[in-house]
Amino acid sequence: MGRNSIHKLKRPPRYSQGASVVHLEKEDDLFDLLERTENPLLLILEGVQDPHNLGACLRTASGAGVTAILAPVKGSCGITHTVRDVSCGGADEVPFLKVKNISVLLRRLKDLGVQLVGTSNRSQASLFEVDLKEPTAIVLGSEGWGIRKVTGELCDHLVNIPMAGKVDCLNVSVSAGVCLYEAVRQRL
Amino acid sequence: MGRNSIHKLKRPPRYSQGASVVHLEKEDDLFDLLERTENPLLLILEGVQDPHNLGACLRTASGAGVTAILAPVKGSCGITHTVRDVSCGGADEVPFLKVKNISVLLRRLKDLGVQLVGTSNRSQASLFEVDLKEPTAIVLGSEGWGIRKVTGELCDHLVNIPMAGKVDCLNVSVSAGVCLYEAVRQRL
Repeated sequence: MGRNSIHKLKRPPRYSQGASVVHLEKEDDLFDLLERTENPLLLILEGVQDPHNLGACLRTASGAGVTAILAPVKGSCGITHTVRDVSCGGADEVPFLKVKNISVLLRRLKDLGVQLVGTSNRSQASLFEVDLKEPTAIVLGSEGWGIRKVTGELCDHLVNIPMAGKVDCLNVSVSAGVCLYEAVRQRL
Repeated sequence: MGRNSIHKLKRPPRYSQGASVVHLEKEDDLFDLLERTENPLLLILEGVQDPHNLGACLRTASGAGVTAILAPVKGSCGITHTVRDVSCGGADEVPFLKVKNISVLLRRLKDLGVQLVGTSNRSQASLFEVDLKEPTAIVLGSEGWGIRKVTGELCDHLVNIPMAGKVDCLNVSVSAGVCLYEAVRQRL
């Protein structure tokens, strides 16, 4: 099943087959989904613990047509009532999977031809310099610490979101929005 | 005093003259600031009542180098302790002004040559089709109702943020991030 393009006004149920939404229970389900998806766009949240942030990320991911959101079992928030409420429906629509080992997952994604784009405010390259038209996973770290060193080393590109003022970085859901919609823009 | 360009790694205090941050007390202060600003980027929040959302908008506005945030006196949140906390310093950096009459302000901005770009999920044009390189005010409505009809009629462009899934619209701070960073990207 091909990946739908972004629609401006119509909002088709993107991940449904008939009426059922894709539910990911294990990593193999994710790779089954990726095989059926024409040009996947993934969001990997390495350390989002706040349910409001995860909910906002799911809402944003629905808007940007994200194929799935992935997070580590350890140190990440799961889909709680608050997450569901804040997501405004995104939690029921965007497949979400917690994995035991993010590094192993990232290597499997790379083997499949998915480029890994991590954000780091110490990177010299800007988000807007990277080609996001090919299969891509956006990797965001925890708000306090950024992405882990081992994760950064696995990324094909480390990019910064330009920050003009004294504030260090954006809220993780806003970062997700800026990165994912840059991919949407490039793919239009 | 010219407007600084977006710096990737250095984060200079953008709105300071010496050590003092620009504080807006009345509309004339705003227009004084605009006269000193080379290519202003404004954010107009028509109905943000939630302090977390306003705080997140201020944080995002600092990152994108926004000249000032404007909101109506009636029906908008002010700078509270929560707003300040959530803004991560943005509230102390980005000038914020509440005005009595948004329509009058919008007309004055138009007269000054600032283009008004409002978001509406009923618009046929996408955000990514509009030239944001010239002096611009991004106008966002309340989360429940969108921008008011009278405001929409004053806008030079009404644009949608493409939504791929079933979720109607993004959180207002994420919308702000997507719109403002599209301006940043175009101006790089």
